[in-house]
Amino acid sequence: MNKVNLDEKLALFDDLWSPKIVASLNDYDIQVAKADGEFVWHEHADTDEFFLVLKGRLVIQMRDGDVELGPGELFVVPKGIAHRPRASDGLEVLLIEPAGTINTGNAGGELTAVKERL
Amino acid sequence: MNKVNLDEKLALFDDLWSPKIVASLNDYDIQVAKADGEFVWHEHADTDEFFLVLKGRLVIQMRDGDVELGPGELFVVPKGIAHRPRASDGLEVLLIEPAGTINTGNAGGELTAVKERL
Repeated sequence: MNKVNLDEKLALFDDLWSPKIVASLNDYDIQVAKADGEFVWHEHADTDEFFLVLKGRLVIQMRDGDVELGPGELFVVPKGIAHRPRASDGLEVLLIEPAGTINTGNAGGELTAVKERL
Repeated sequence: MNKVNLDEKLALFDDLWSPKIVASLNDYDIQVAKADGEFVWHEHADTDEFFLVLKGRLVIQMRDGDVELGPGELFVVPKGIAHRPRASDGLEVLLIEPAGTINTGNAGGELTAVKERL
């Protein structure tokens, strides 16, 4: 029954592209992450993915065009849509997706993260 | 494929205790709401409920104790747990729960809202 202060959670780590679970909503993980630069192109065949920018800038590149997000802006990447996040300005983001979703989706590779719970 | 700017959405309405849907995440509604004062005691038998305070103060009263949230703080009310939100200081909140969840849960009554999509 504890609340989550996002700034406090974000102060606990420095690694990039490595979402940390801060709460659960039914079978969804509520996560925070820091990122900089470009991630890999990937898609999630079975789920949408929620991004809310808390700090910094996030461009979500997609085949049909980019979406640019600043603080207080959110976007839901539809399932099956290929996307590549590009982060700058000290991005801090709130991510929500079903538990067990792999951060690199169908792409895999070295940026695939094991999601730690803070 | 449009982003959601939370401040822009919140500027579109003034009614209280009436969540507005701003996006969907699979079968979940991403909603914003404004509130002031006390809501009704209620519970959701089948789902957790996510609250992230954007502005103002939110106390979530529960039988075993209260949780007080300010901006940048979130809490997930577990399913089946009776709770009563109390809002102050111009509360603006991000709410996430499965589509079709009734805002007053098992309590019903005049504060039951039809959720409009902005």
